[in-house]
Amino acid sequence: MALDFLKFTDENSVRVPAPDLHKQSSAILQGVGTPEEHAEVTAKIMTKASLMAVDSHGVGNAVRYSKSIETGEYTVPQTVDVLSESDTTTLLSCGDGLGFVAAHQAMEMSITKAKKHGVGMASVRDGHHIGMVGYYPLMAVEDGMIGMAITSASPAMRPALGAQARLGTNPIAFGAPAGKEKPFLFDAATTTVASGKLGLARRLGVPIPEGWAVTAEGQPLTQPPESRGDHWSQNPLGNTREQGAHKGYGLAVMVDILAGVLSGGGFGAQLKGGENMTWTMAVDISKFRPLDDFKAMMDEMIQSLHSTPAEPGEDRVLVAGDPEWEAEAERSEKGIPMHESQYDEMRARAQELDVELFI
Amino acid sequence: MALDFLKFTDENSVRVPAPDLHKQSSAILQGVGTPEEHAEVTAKIMTKASLMAVDSHGVGNAVRYSKSIETGEYTVPQTVDVLSESDTTTLLSCGDGLGFVAAHQAMEMSITKAKKHGVGMASVRDGHHIGMVGYYPLMAVEDGMIGMAITSASPAMRPALGAQARLGTNPIAFGAPAGKEKPFLFDAATTTVASGKLGLARRLGVPIPEGWAVTAEGQPLTQPPESRGDHWSQNPLGNTREQGAHKGYGLAVMVDILAGVLSGGGFGAQLKGGENMTWTMAVDISKFRPLDDFKAMMDEMIQSLHSTPAEPGEDRVLVAGDPEWEAEAERSEKGIPMHESQYDEMRARAQELDVELFI
Repeated sequence: MALDFLKFTDENSVRVPAPDLHKQSSAILQGVGTPEEHAEVTAKIMTKASLMAVDSHGVGNAVRYSKSIETGEYTVPQTVDVLSESDTTTLLSCGDGLGFVAAHQAMEMSITKAKKHGVGMASVRDGHHIGMVGYYPLMAVEDGMIGMAITSASPAMRPALGAQARLGTNPIAFGAPAGKEKPFLFDAATTTVASGKLGLARRLGVPIPEGWAVTAEGQPLTQPPESRGDHWSQNPLGNTREQGAHKGYGLAVMVDILAGVLSGGGFGAQLKGGENMTWTMAVDISKFRPLDDFKAMMDEMIQSLHSTPAEPGEDRVLVAGDPEWEAEAERSEKGIPMHESQYDEMRARAQELDVELFI
Repeated sequence: MALDFLKFTDENSVRVPAPDLHKQSSAILQGVGTPEEHAEVTAKIMTKASLMAVDSHGVGNAVRYSKSIETGEYTVPQTVDVLSESDTTTLLSCGDGLGFVAAHQAMEMSITKAKKHGVGMASVRDGHHIGMVGYYPLMAVEDGMIGMAITSASPAMRPALGAQARLGTNPIAFGAPAGKEKPFLFDAATTTVASGKLGLARRLGVPIPEGWAVTAEGQPLTQPPESRGDHWSQNPLGNTREQGAHKGYGLAVMVDILAGVLSGGGFGAQLKGGENMTWTMAVDISKFRPLDDFKAMMDEMIQSLHSTPAEPGEDRVLVAGDPEWEAEAERSEKGIPMHESQYDEMRARAQELDVELFI
């Protein structure tokens, strides 16, 4: 449900076929020593994000990940270790490498355990950015399961009533399969907006609405500063006490507990910029009741929501995932729009690393 | 984190010891044929809500539940059936009776399965009101586990961009144990405020802030109507598109999926007023890492959040559960404040049913 003023347009972007962007981002990662298997998993997830118009988590990030690998911030090649395991649970270390790799393994293991025992769950420590969090629930959805994934990060959000950031934007993603309808796919930061939207606004040179970020004195910001610090923070979902800021805040702490405290990787205020802890869950629907019956009721629910009269000035009521599925259909056909500066940056990085050019 | 203008005061309320209110509410339920065991479970949960100042879900509700039993809306005595079961999952029917009874059993079974396999989960259909949702995670917390519970209801909330209610206020509750600090306890509706707060505002005769409820034309309401209908609805957490209304909305649908669709009891728009479906989960922390290490990090996290500088005009930063734990300490000592009209109503109902008076 991206806001229109933050969207790419045909004037400021070029269209590139998804398979080429997949190859290019994988090549860039391999160009700094990432094993092919890890680069491919990461490229697959970034490309899906780009296809679904989650551009802040798209293929363009291959450039910055490759730099984090080069500087040694990311350990590559990484070793993903299983630190503990039970019938239904896994504790993984991401080995300080690419977050995608361990998050992907966490959901794979969650699905395997769910198939056997009904529910599977994993918590991941020592990780970095995992990209579009909604990708991981979709892995479960493809297996006819309910999927959930969350990830924590270093401070960006102030607690309700607080004046300084103590929590990451801590997104929650949840997916469930439907029958004739597209799967339900929820993926949202527990701040009023994802931090990627602030970055996009900076790149596009547009002001942000009041309610997204505040100074340490509680004054609204309409031009978000470049760097994090104690002088400003993002607002929790709900924004003010009266409108439920404690709810966005509480959900963000829940994310810190499942991803950071349960894993032992640390809560938000203990994390450095770029560090992310993750939690995944898969639930085998057929252990509760027949999957087809579940899917039929999902269809009914989605149709009922779509049929809700729209508020004045709006065309239609959406269901979580609608914008992403629509974007994927359009971008699979017409190519992925990339901001020209990002396109140039990706090509330049490929040339610098002396890897094959695919775009 | 109740808003001050909705709080009981010593001027409009009387103080009653918790054990007497427990006995009185149990007696009222037994007075209409509820088996002692079911009345006691329900009274225990309602009394805990009253102690924790979750007054909208407190002991006073024994009166309306007893009327729902009398009219046959609730089936009492009820039979809680296990419709399906696996290593980690349970599907329960609440037998159209008191929601508390099946929700309590759901969490008990979740905890038992979590002890054995790491995670336990239950979905409950054919139910009614389960009271304070946060009670159920606390059951897991007492066993050194992470607990989660959610419950769905008939339409009260509009979808983001929508003009009519399609979802319940669908609260999410989550608890985790700490060491020296009190447990983390999050419990919040996915609307900007719980519907109980609208009821309280009506009872206290105070207007509500803009952002809590709107007409079908999208105009803010400051006096919420008595009855539900297509002419008004509550706003999802986030309230406007720009401030993340799709997030509160998406979380509410997630609740409908886990409680209503997974159980087969039906999604929000299929439920009648008073019907509630429920989902519970327990996670055995020790399957991931030593419980004491987890608790020590929880303490650190809670202390870090408490130490956040407060925004201008605020005294301190709270952690979810703080107001409830503080209320419980105060009310355990001084008694539970009850609005005089509610106190009178409870006594009158007890006399009407010819059961012993304890208050």
